[in-house]
Amino acid sequence: MLKNDLLIRALKRQACPRTPIWVMRQAGRYLPEYMEVRSKADFVTLCKTPELAAEVTIQPVDIIGVDAAIIFSDILVIPEAMGMRLEIIESKGPRLYEPIRSGADIDNLKVPDVSEALRYVEDAIRLTKKQLDDRVPLIGFAGAAWTLFTYAVEGGGSKNYKYAKEMIYNHPKEAHKLLGMITQVITDFLLMQIECGANAVQIFDSWASALSEDDYKEFSLPYIKQSVEAVKAKHPEIPVIVFAKDANTILPELADTGCDALGLSWNIDIARARGILKDKVALQGNLDPTMLYASPDRIREEASKILQKFGQHTDSSGHVFNLGHGILPDVKPAHLKVLVDYIKEESSKYH
Amino acid sequence: MLKNDLLIRALKRQACPRTPIWVMRQAGRYLPEYMEVRSKADFVTLCKTPELAAEVTIQPVDIIGVDAAIIFSDILVIPEAMGMRLEIIESKGPRLYEPIRSGADIDNLKVPDVSEALRYVEDAIRLTKKQLDDRVPLIGFAGAAWTLFTYAVEGGGSKNYKYAKEMIYNHPKEAHKLLGMITQVITDFLLMQIECGANAVQIFDSWASALSEDDYKEFSLPYIKQSVEAVKAKHPEIPVIVFAKDANTILPELADTGCDALGLSWNIDIARARGILKDKVALQGNLDPTMLYASPDRIREEASKILQKFGQHTDSSGHVFNLGHGILPDVKPAHLKVLVDYIKEESSKYH
Repeated sequence: MLKNDLLIRALKRQACPRTPIWVMRQAGRYLPEYMEVRSKADFVTLCKTPELAAEVTIQPVDIIGVDAAIIFSDILVIPEAMGMRLEIIESKGPRLYEPIRSGADIDNLKVPDVSEALRYVEDAIRLTKKQLDDRVPLIGFAGAAWTLFTYAVEGGGSKNYKYAKEMIYNHPKEAHKLLGMITQVITDFLLMQIECGANAVQIFDSWASALSEDDYKEFSLPYIKQSVEAVKAKHPEIPVIVFAKDANTILPELADTGCDALGLSWNIDIARARGILKDKVALQGNLDPTMLYASPDRIREEASKILQKFGQHTDSSGHVFNLGHGILPDVKPAHLKVLVDYIKEESSKYH
Repeated sequence: MLKNDLLIRALKRQACPRTPIWVMRQAGRYLPEYMEVRSKADFVTLCKTPELAAEVTIQPVDIIGVDAAIIFSDILVIPEAMGMRLEIIESKGPRLYEPIRSGADIDNLKVPDVSEALRYVEDAIRLTKKQLDDRVPLIGFAGAAWTLFTYAVEGGGSKNYKYAKEMIYNHPKEAHKLLGMITQVITDFLLMQIECGANAVQIFDSWASALSEDDYKEFSLPYIKQSVEAVKAKHPEIPVIVFAKDANTILPELADTGCDALGLSWNIDIARARGILKDKVALQGNLDPTMLYASPDRIREEASKILQKFGQHTDSSGHVFNLGHGILPDVKPAHLKVLVDYIKEESSKYH
């Protein structure tokens, strides 16, 4: 039994005494304690060493007091498990070698048995769960198929997604084949994470806004829906969060994937989002990550505004406080602590 | 009198026999003829040499057959005119030296007499108008205050807008002072461009989506409105286009600035945008720029879809076909020609 189950209750839109908070990339470079662990191992090694991954996963729970842990890993472990060589230099971004540009490249990829290829994530989750001792829930995650597709086809980050777009526009059948393969791995991976202890899962579609609405409905949404449905069919009690960054015009369609909650970028007003979605799903977000550069008073002022904008809770509403994107590496940990303390103290008046 | 006034008619939501088309950054690196001129002068010199600027401005009219020319220049001529040193290396992005980070830095900036500081733009417009001989309209432009503010404060492009956000969050008074100064120059500059021959003007808010809705309403929208109102007060007959990239949740507020048309990014469905705005303004857009990497048939298919999505014209609707952002430098000119020819041939059935 979880000692603090606020995240789960909020995601399921059950009554909560206050709003829970965690932040994306909370186990990361802004924490000196993370940097110390990181100095012993490169990023990928850190992901693959359960003792170290568990240690950094739990740091923000101990140091900052967030209401959930999220397993330390990276969305690109999936393309690596499919056979691509991965290199991550945090300050430069990730590289995937031998990018996928043709049908032959796709045929060379494998749909691995995740319990073997991603066993290190399972081990990290089991160890983290043990060490966390049910103090807070543990979140598992995966990238969305479209976002992982762009990395695999581009060979890394991208400004204009030239090769990914060329594939969906000129070779849509191949694109769908690759997206289908990636989705199979995502689904298996999410199930594995749940089955070894994750209490909730999040799907990150970081590059959602690179597509037109119609292309999003063809090349991203059905694959997210497929994974969400597979998870909910087997584990209906596990909440699923979908974070499709900046996909602000298609929130109802995202909610229709069957997920429990939608993550929001900071460039949509959370009151507007709640008005559109009418508590069909819980909402997660959505403070501008750069607000943590501001003074403590300004941080509290803005956090208060977001709580107010979400408004009073009913018996079927849910709000998980978070940033609108990952915490930035040069933020002061004390500033995140200001935010977390404020939400813990002030949010009860909306419940 | 303009021989082809389709752009102006469409922007004013007057009856048109077909949909006009131009594309952002149409005088640019994708054209070999541009690269030839560019080989003789660096980017900033090209902007400042009226003969060369006029030559590249007119190239896409002659070579591609677009329905409008847009004066060759850059949004950063304004911070340069205010006293900052500008360097533009097209493949690397722009740099503004001695970024503005304090009240003292702001005090060191000047609000110049644009007829002196930006005289080279006036000269380029006059020469272009003469050489264009009224074949098509000439568009003038400026960056929006918020976008120019980010460049001035960051000293160039930016991923997270750290310094710009720090200024608006921690020193909002200084931020407003700087935004006000920039807006004064924008307004004077747009008026100057109109008074020496520009037939329409566009305001580019490239980094609109970096702000929350409330911050956009405080730090960007009022400044756009101020410039639009000043232009319309003096030249009510000149259409004003506002392009706030990805600001898809606040289209009605953008339309309320008093502009004649809104530019749309490709990640919002143009049918949805028309449904929201109900022909209060004309719409400009919104093909994904990477669609020009696709085959000619695929380009035509997608162009057709956008015309269909906009739908039948009424006597108060306006659509200017464009890309959802600037044309990419590695696009084949023949592919742009396919798009332009298709719109010219096929759009009449919607009018």
